[in-house]
Amino acid sequence: MTILHLKSPSSERWLSQVRSSLPEILIDHAHCEQKAAATAMDLMFDYVQHEEVCDAMSEIVREELEHFQLVRRLLQRREIRFRGLKPGTYGRLLKQQMRRQEPHRAVDRMLIAALIEARSCERFQLLQEHLEDPELSAFYGSLFESEARHHATYVRLAELFANRATVQSRLQELSEAEAEIISAGCPLARVHS
Amino acid sequence: MTILHLKSPSSERWLSQVRSSLPEILIDHAHCEQKAAATAMDLMFDYVQHEEVCDAMSEIVREELEHFQLVRRLLQRREIRFRGLKPGTYGRLLKQQMRRQEPHRAVDRMLIAALIEARSCERFQLLQEHLEDPELSAFYGSLFESEARHHATYVRLAELFANRATVQSRLQELSEAEAEIISAGCPLARVHS
Repeated sequence: MTILHLKSPSSERWLSQVRSSLPEILIDHAHCEQKAAATAMDLMFDYVQHEEVCDAMSEIVREELEHFQLVRRLLQRREIRFRGLKPGTYGRLLKQQMRRQEPHRAVDRMLIAALIEARSCERFQLLQEHLEDPELSAFYGSLFESEARHHATYVRLAELFANRATVQSRLQELSEAEAEIISAGCPLARVHS
Repeated sequence: MTILHLKSPSSERWLSQVRSSLPEILIDHAHCEQKAAATAMDLMFDYVQHEEVCDAMSEIVREELEHFQLVRRLLQRREIRFRGLKPGTYGRLLKQQMRRQEPHRAVDRMLIAALIEARSCERFQLLQEHLEDPELSAFYGSLFESEARHHATYVRLAELFANRATVQSRLQELSEAEAEIISAGCPLARVHS
């Protein structure tokens, strides 16, 4: 996971949440894809003068929406009702790390998005390996490559707003914060709990 | 334009704004496509329990982003710098018509989106007919069909939140308000001025 800048692997604790609350994890996954699309859209809106942001974000929005639709269809086939879920703590705690002032804010928004993608990637790979249901295992196998790609895109975009060394050092800081949030866990069964 | 529920045709006044400020109209067009994508994303987020909303909005977001990229590339080829523009009055005045309480709010959001698409459709057709630049004329000719389709989609989605007769009668009211806003015009040269 070094390539994804993650500082703590997911624990057995999370896999046991998956085993006991799989439908909830699947519903949360649909919400995650939608939130990822909305985040990319917001970034595009706020940094629209940057051609590279527009190109990359319009691609990511499209992919995340496609994944959202795939997860929703999977829920339908399994007769799991798609519904609102109380959000876990992960996103909120991670966003507390964000600096307010530009261009630091832009760097942090890109890197936080990068870390969320990285964690999704790590967890989708775990789902592929550990789920006994062959359809689900194949499904997560098909998704984790795009999460890794999105991670790399967001790190690259952060470099539009600060030099590479600054971005790398901030990425180290944020990934330590991310690892702590993941280690603390969240009692709600979520993709990022 | 009866099929699009528009109650006033665009006047010669708008065409003269186009002739005197074409680059500004093109920049505004890029912003319009982006705003249309963001509106569809917001609607998807707020009415995510409705499968039909999700399906239609994820399609519209994708198309609007594609158009946004097309307009941006056209600006680049013409060496027109993409930049922020002071918004015209159209969107703000139209949104003042929106009722606050659900499910009326949902009906109004869908119908206002429908009317904006209808007006874009009418104006793109005018641009196709009146612009002497063959690339631009062909470009607008290629876009107006999708605006008409989006109009119909939004009217259909409004019917998820009220019966057909109620939707049609509200559409009449809103299209009268829209026609008044268009007749009053806006001194800034915009797609919807």
